[in-house]
Amino acid sequence: MSHFEIVKKSKTSKARAGILHTPHGPIETPVFMPVGTQGTVKSLTPQHLHDINAQIILSNTYHLALRPGSKLIKEAGGLHKWIAWPKPILTDSGGFQVFSLSKMRKITDTGVTFQSHIDGSKHLFTPKSVIDFQHDFGTDIMMPLDICTPYPATEEETARDLAITTQWETEAAEYWRSLNTPQLLFAIVQGGMYPHLRDRSVEALIKLDLPGYAIGGVSVGEPIDKMYPIIAHTTPQLPENKPRYLMGVGLPENLEYAIAQGVDMFDCVLPTRLARHGQLFTTTGKLTIKNEQFKTDPLPIDPLCQCYTCTHFSRSYLRHLFMAKELLAMTLLSLHNVHYLIQFVQKIRDDILAS
Amino acid sequence: MSHFEIVKKSKTSKARAGILHTPHGPIETPVFMPVGTQGTVKSLTPQHLHDINAQIILSNTYHLALRPGSKLIKEAGGLHKWIAWPKPILTDSGGFQVFSLSKMRKITDTGVTFQSHIDGSKHLFTPKSVIDFQHDFGTDIMMPLDICTPYPATEEETARDLAITTQWETEAAEYWRSLNTPQLLFAIVQGGMYPHLRDRSVEALIKLDLPGYAIGGVSVGEPIDKMYPIIAHTTPQLPENKPRYLMGVGLPENLEYAIAQGVDMFDCVLPTRLARHGQLFTTTGKLTIKNEQFKTDPLPIDPLCQCYTCTHFSRSYLRHLFMAKELLAMTLLSLHNVHYLIQFVQKIRDDILAS
Repeated sequence: MSHFEIVKKSKTSKARAGILHTPHGPIETPVFMPVGTQGTVKSLTPQHLHDINAQIILSNTYHLALRPGSKLIKEAGGLHKWIAWPKPILTDSGGFQVFSLSKMRKITDTGVTFQSHIDGSKHLFTPKSVIDFQHDFGTDIMMPLDICTPYPATEEETARDLAITTQWETEAAEYWRSLNTPQLLFAIVQGGMYPHLRDRSVEALIKLDLPGYAIGGVSVGEPIDKMYPIIAHTTPQLPENKPRYLMGVGLPENLEYAIAQGVDMFDCVLPTRLARHGQLFTTTGKLTIKNEQFKTDPLPIDPLCQCYTCTHFSRSYLRHLFMAKELLAMTLLSLHNVHYLIQFVQKIRDDILAS
Repeated sequence: MSHFEIVKKSKTSKARAGILHTPHGPIETPVFMPVGTQGTVKSLTPQHLHDINAQIILSNTYHLALRPGSKLIKEAGGLHKWIAWPKPILTDSGGFQVFSLSKMRKITDTGVTFQSHIDGSKHLFTPKSVIDFQHDFGTDIMMPLDICTPYPATEEETARDLAITTQWETEAAEYWRSLNTPQLLFAIVQGGMYPHLRDRSVEALIKLDLPGYAIGGVSVGEPIDKMYPIIAHTTPQLPENKPRYLMGVGLPENLEYAIAQGVDMFDCVLPTRLARHGQLFTTTGKLTIKNEQFKTDPLPIDPLCQCYTCTHFSRSYLRHLFMAKELLAMTLLSLHNVHYLIQFVQKIRDDILAS
């Protein structure tokens, strides 16, 4: 039985419209997943997320495992109940954060040791332990421990990271099968900016026959003319009948490109992070709300947008909130940006269906 | 024609249940008014305020006149439209903030000069100019410029402040009448902790025959055994057939006491300020969310509360958000505290009606 069904293939590109079935319900793809690192999409309530048709959110295993701990969440009835979000949740493995946020990290025979960025406490993450964390959370889609090779990296460094990642993912897949859980485990393709290493990664991971395939190790600081070829090269090699998830990519133009290559799922902190810095997506390009020109502007952020922010508030008022450092600015601007990306992807799905 | 009707007088105290008619609709009294200093009740959307049955909010003339300026708000269609709050708004006069926030303040023949706390720019507020600001805002209830005598203050200082305040209020009332606006102007009784100065203030202000009467100059740092006698002494001297507003008082026990003395309206920053510091009102007393004891507590803040926060989230999750410095903590905790006070006063009104 497959978890993923393709409803329609685009007639003009490699894009697909699909449905991914998870323990907490179906997700229509392509889909943008807002990021709720610490069990909350920053400044938004679950009601806000529901209102803007968020189908699934992402949360971070690294953050939640360190604070408050996976056992606490398990005993609270699981992550969905604890954060009051009844729809699907994907959790990453924590690998990316171990290598970007923590201190004193060291790869050992069994996994990776590091010091928490919160309190300096020492931890060991292993391919099994990060599955255990996510099993405790009860998330719908789990990700395996990996090394997200930074940019730039030599071929030698990238190959060494990839070998460890492949070993870890093989262990994770085996352990996940032994749990016999309805939670889905995705594989993560690594290999940096080296196409033949990407090929090596795909070849190994396809053998694991997991429910979904992610492309990791992009959007790590490389220029767009390095990222796009890797997406174009890797995506069509992933199993046709399984969902494809491009990790950490969230600019509208990038989503559009990747969907046309056959990617189905995206996550990114950009819409909320940019919003907190007053940077807004609009159908006519980016808007910086603090600009003097908006001081008396009666228009909404985007006159074509139907979000709560755009149907109630002017650029003038939003600029005032932002300049006065009011918390409501964070909520209203985040709501707009997340809604914008969700709608942007939904519109592409509609176009695929109509193609 | 009176703006205020008393629906029922309590059989057990001096409390009254009434209805105050304003240009933006009726308000059932007694009422608690959440404070939205800069045109936003901190961290809450207008939708949140609507959902918790806020009938009226307060905004600060000092803050809005300095930033973004009253003319900008007037040209945007008025404060209600600009902040997307269609129900009544009360604005204070800015007097309190001039004397508590600004620098280099100096009383002149015509008003008070001061330097803005935002950028040091120099300003003059006069009895007429603060009415003009509020006329530009289009708020339902306006307050006249006054001097809120700090605590402690000598009788001489208090009497001197009161003489100026009375003069300013007389000028404000005259100017307000000349505007022939449906906006209501309230008087503010001052006189500090000296009952005979309070008497002097009431006597002068009653002659102005304004639509409502406020008690200012309490909750300025004095102990409760100084505040309560002033409330008990002053309230019954205010016109029976007009709304009575106790400024800046917002602890539940204080509201209960003052309503029993015949007060109808309250505002206070405490519910939102305490919430941002993790201090929560409950039917069994104050709760400090960061306390270790709540780390795994599955109960809501108050099991008897029906607010969005209490019907969706545990103390455990809210503590996590607070400890992780997540913005959502500010929203959810503020929502609870404001809802709590609104419901607390609504319940007292129900009791008056049932007495």
